Amino acid sequence: MASSTEFNSIDDILGKLSLDDQGKVKKVLYGLGCRDVELPDDVRDEAERSNLEVSLYGFTAKEEQTRLPRIIRIGAFQNKLPLPTTVPIIEQRSALFEIAKKAIGIASKAHVNVFCFQEAWNMPFAFCTREKEPWCEYAESAEDGVTTKFLQTIAKQYNIVIISPILERDEIHGDVLWNTAVVIDNHGEVLGKHRKNHIPRVGDFNESTYYMEGNTGHPVFQTEFGKIAINICYGRHHPLNWLMFGINGAEIVFNPSATVGEMSEHLWGIEARNAAIANGYFSVAINRVGTEIFPYPFSSGNQKLPRTDFGHFYGSSYVTAPNGVRTPGLSRIKDGLLVAEVDLNLCRQVRDYWGFQLTQRLELYASALNKAAKLDFVPQLVQK
Amino acid sequence: MASSTEFNSIDDILGKLSLDDQGKVKKVLYGLGCRDVELPDDVRDEAERSNLEVSLYGFTAKEEQTRLPRIIRIGAFQNKLPLPTTVPIIEQRSALFEIAKKAIGIASKAHVNVFCFQEAWNMPFAFCTREKEPWCEYAESAEDGVTTKFLQTIAKQYNIVIISPILERDEIHGDVLWNTAVVIDNHGEVLGKHRKNHIPRVGDFNESTYYMEGNTGHPVFQTEFGKIAINICYGRHHPLNWLMFGINGAEIVFNPSATVGEMSEHLWGIEARNAAIANGYFSVAINRVGTEIFPYPFSSGNQKLPRTDFGHFYGSSYVTAPNGVRTPGLSRIKDGLLVAEVDLNLCRQVRDYWGFQLTQRLELYASALNKAAKLDFVPQLVQK
Repeated sequence: MASSTEFNSIDDILGKLSLDDQGKVKKVLYGLGCRDVELPDDVRDEAERSNLEVSLYGFTAKEEQTRLPRIIRIGAFQNKLPLPTTVPIIEQRSALFEIAKKAIGIASKAHVNVFCFQEAWNMPFAFCTREKEPWCEYAESAEDGVTTKFLQTIAKQYNIVIISPILERDEIHGDVLWNTAVVIDNHGEVLGKHRKNHIPRVGDFNESTYYMEGNTGHPVFQTEFGKIAINICYGRHHPLNWLMFGINGAEIVFNPSATVGEMSEHLWGIEARNAAIANGYFSVAINRVGTEIFPYPFSSGNQKLPRTDFGHFYGSSYVTAPNGVRTPGLSRIKDGLLVAEVDLNLCRQVRDYWGFQLTQRLELYASALNKAAKLDFVPQLVQK
Repeated sequence: MASSTEFNSIDDILGKLSLDDQGKVKKVLYGLGCRDVELPDDVRDEAERSNLEVSLYGFTAKEEQTRLPRIIRIGAFQNKLPLPTTVPIIEQRSALFEIAKKAIGIASKAHVNVFCFQEAWNMPFAFCTREKEPWCEYAESAEDGVTTKFLQTIAKQYNIVIISPILERDEIHGDVLWNTAVVIDNHGEVLGKHRKNHIPRVGDFNESTYYMEGNTGHPVFQTEFGKIAINICYGRHHPLNWLMFGINGAEIVFNPSATVGEMSEHLWGIEARNAAIANGYFSVAINRVGTEIFPYPFSSGNQKLPRTDFGHFYGSSYVTAPNGVRTPGLSRIKDGLLVAEVDLNLCRQVRDYWGFQLTQRLELYASALNKAAKLDFVPQLVQK
């Protein structure tokens, strides 16, 4: 574990370089055009009191002649489990609700308009265990479960859109479970939900034991603060998933995740960022943080002895603009709130500039994928 | 220009950190599992004599019980134009042929099996000018042009597969031009060609003035050293293009490019790498290097005064393995040859591990793209 948790962020390490060298490295790695914005005093004070890292960045768009700027603030929240995984469900959930309430309060003071949690934020990430009890009991209705009801009040109170990724129980269709993101608008109404499209079968990500591939398509939600969509966790490895949210009009795509060190950390900075570039929208990569210990050892399909933890969720949440410029990441080990001020007009400006949508040849690929999906598909292979 | 050319590579700058810090940063940025391999003495000596940066890295795969390892070496070559853009065509081409011959000779000594040039390697990257003369005269037949013939001899001599991205003239179909990669096998035979699928209309990339979108689909070429494909330059911004090469079975996809600083350098490390991850193959990103000056000022559509150069091609060629681990980049300012020793078995091993192909839901996307490509498409938008 030491190797995964021993440092706060690579941004901290890069800070040891000379300012000149930092400038060069950041320009190549992150691009130019993301500026630090000073936190309001009350936000900084409250963040310190809550031992919460709060970062605020801004992306600028050009002024247009025929559209007003559409400047909004995105909030991405990553947090550790406040209590051991073994405490009773209601106790755990209450502690998480407390954390949530505080974080959204701070986000509101930082003028956040759209706030998103990490994946399955209201429970331990227990899918590694393959145990059904008690974890399935965390599942609840997307429309009127206790978590949704709790957040409806807060969303209305703070005039904030909240994306709440939970374990959903669908009572109407045989009590089955889904990995679902609920979108609650700033008036406290449930605008809709999206079910995770791609379910992993790798390492300790035994999620296919609990729920199947989502059946809600690629919905984009029209909010007062722009058109938003949610690509849940493992869906970030699927460029087609990102693509369809873009095609349906998303201006911001959130990627609430729970992913661990050795396996994916070197991919983390690549995939959500590539999606923002390719699709001309803002992407918001949010990862769980901390290490969660479970009571019974579980095997990991890796020819090693069973263990009781999943590895370290490395946080490192970040935002990418449609021009590929990104913010630094939040901490790899601490709770944090990342706030990004963005002008949504940048999406179209970048699309006009780069022309990736103009040149995408959708019909060619619709036809190619149709052939590729058929059982008698013959690949285009050239051989002597 | 100074800002673009003043440093060799960010890898050099990261080398100023302590070894411990370098380890952490490299692990997060590049991933673990790419090893330095020592150059044979004769390669190092000849590289020094030729003032050519030569780097050699290795990626390892696990041993399998039912397949032998398939270890091959990839060579990626980036080079400056040796003479001013204004010299006569035959002189320029001869000088480039000299460079090519030397580079392939060194590559052969480094046991390279598949060698790829940068985009339009046998000419100035003159498409910024929008002038037809004399640049169109560089175009030649893919099958029996002077460049192909020259490389056929060398390919046979060195038993090496060569990918040769050129400006193609199609005499049979009305003398039109294409941006084409010719694949010459290690016996000196033309295995086939691929025409660039996505043509830019951005900045000085006025390529749509010269040639149209390719009509050769997404061919994969079966060579003695694995199944290879070519995603030419701007196609790297298109995840669907990368996807189709993977679906057709590619194990290595080359991305011969010509791209410049301010515009794309912060995207360079993202797109080809994301493609390797998402599609489970090796990707080889090769960028032109140097600054090319043209005789007549051309405007760039950027509300600035016309200029005579395109900006600085920043090199930085690199290879990514299917597990997302990458090599450092070649220089931003110097000619270089990057050699990567890979076991192609890693492709399937990573696919088995991560399951991105298993979970890709191709039918869902075939159907979705079919709808999206239609004129009467209605996006999936949820609103109150």
